[in-house]
Amino acid sequence: MQSKGTLYLIPNLIADDTAEKAIPAYNAMLLGSLNYFICEHAKSLRALLKASGVASPYDHLTYFELNKHTDRFELESFIKPLLSGFDMGLVSDAGCPGIADPGAQIVALAHAQGIKVLPLIGPSSIFMALMGSGFNGQKFSFHGYLPQKEPQLKKYLAEVERSIATEQSSHIFIEAPYRNTKLLQLLIKLLNPAQKLCLAINLSAENQRIETKTLGEWKKKLPEIDKLPTVFVLGS
Amino acid sequence: MQSKGTLYLIPNLIADDTAEKAIPAYNAMLLGSLNYFICEHAKSLRALLKASGVASPYDHLTYFELNKHTDRFELESFIKPLLSGFDMGLVSDAGCPGIADPGAQIVALAHAQGIKVLPLIGPSSIFMALMGSGFNGQKFSFHGYLPQKEPQLKKYLAEVERSIATEQSSHIFIEAPYRNTKLLQLLIKLLNPAQKLCLAINLSAENQRIETKTLGEWKKKLPEIDKLPTVFVLGS
Repeated sequence: MQSKGTLYLIPNLIADDTAEKAIPAYNAMLLGSLNYFICEHAKSLRALLKASGVASPYDHLTYFELNKHTDRFELESFIKPLLSGFDMGLVSDAGCPGIADPGAQIVALAHAQGIKVLPLIGPSSIFMALMGSGFNGQKFSFHGYLPQKEPQLKKYLAEVERSIATEQSSHIFIEAPYRNTKLLQLLIKLLNPAQKLCLAINLSAENQRIETKTLGEWKKKLPEIDKLPTVFVLGS
Repeated sequence: MQSKGTLYLIPNLIADDTAEKAIPAYNAMLLGSLNYFICEHAKSLRALLKASGVASPYDHLTYFELNKHTDRFELESFIKPLLSGFDMGLVSDAGCPGIADPGAQIVALAHAQGIKVLPLIGPSSIFMALMGSGFNGQKFSFHGYLPQKEPQLKKYLAEVERSIATEQSSHIFIEAPYRNTKLLQLLIKLLNPAQKLCLAINLSAENQRIETKTLGEWKKKLPEIDKLPTVFVLGS
């Protein structure tokens, strides 16, 4: 009986020109050895291969795109190379596949088929923001996107405030970059001015900034965050 | 005016002999350039330096130990080199400093003093487990240790079950390794047999295993997890 391949979960860069900071040597070597990939978009897979020193052209590679345009009934066919004994790499556009990014459904299919799943080490803006916030990292939640409408957001934030006060939990979330300032203004409006907020901007890039201040302090001088990749962390 | 140093947050290995898989080239270079450290224990700092190819002896290094024996009134003195213009590295025994590990208090002090904080990229067993679980990574919580006593644990898990059902959130937790089997048995006893559990064992080591099964399936054949580093993930 032919043995099955291994599904490697390979983090992608979160900022340009950061391979030396973000990619362990093993990842680069492994990327050069794989012929089959599942990626969010082919363009970001090729950028990762190039940044990892894998020589182009990449015409011999077989890849399947997994993004919002993918028909979920196709997913089973994506893992066929694994069932045939070939190793595959799962890569999203930025950071860790399956974490605030597509990929989890593929991993779940792999588990259901008894395929070995092997996560590699690399960048995650969520973890870098939490580490850099100075907030409690013994207990935390990642919320993805918060509700956009003010009444729902107010209710959601009241629960977050309760969790910070009673459980000392930290709370991480993101927003579509063009709405970052709008979200910050709503946080300033809806939360106690003494509540601390960490903004982690352009993580892993040369111009990254991580600052933790009270909302009262942020209000005095609003930072430039619109259209910049930003992770928000509330905590104590 | 003398400018302040930068506080680098440097992830440590989570398994022996895995530097090539876990440490980007930049981290190794930076580790070799620093003379001041705050570490959980000097032994694990030296192990990281050695694994990163930094030539010993390390007698010229100044380090402060931050662990359960540290007097919290000492912490302010730990960051004095930063205030004097020297860069410092913050390193815990395994994984990311400040995440399920000491370090957050130092980062908070640095923010309060306007010291630049810069997280590096490296291993986190929490993230590797979540990536490898195949569960929803758009929304998740890390709980640290769950309550040990059965009535409190039962109540806690009821809330986790509710969150999985209504919010599709994933829930990550750990246990003292010698209590891993005991915790698994309690999960089997207290949760629905159809609930899925991912066990991520010996992450990043050669003998790592990541498996996602229903609690009913785990019950049929209990895995060997006692005294092995294991991350638990419940989700859907």
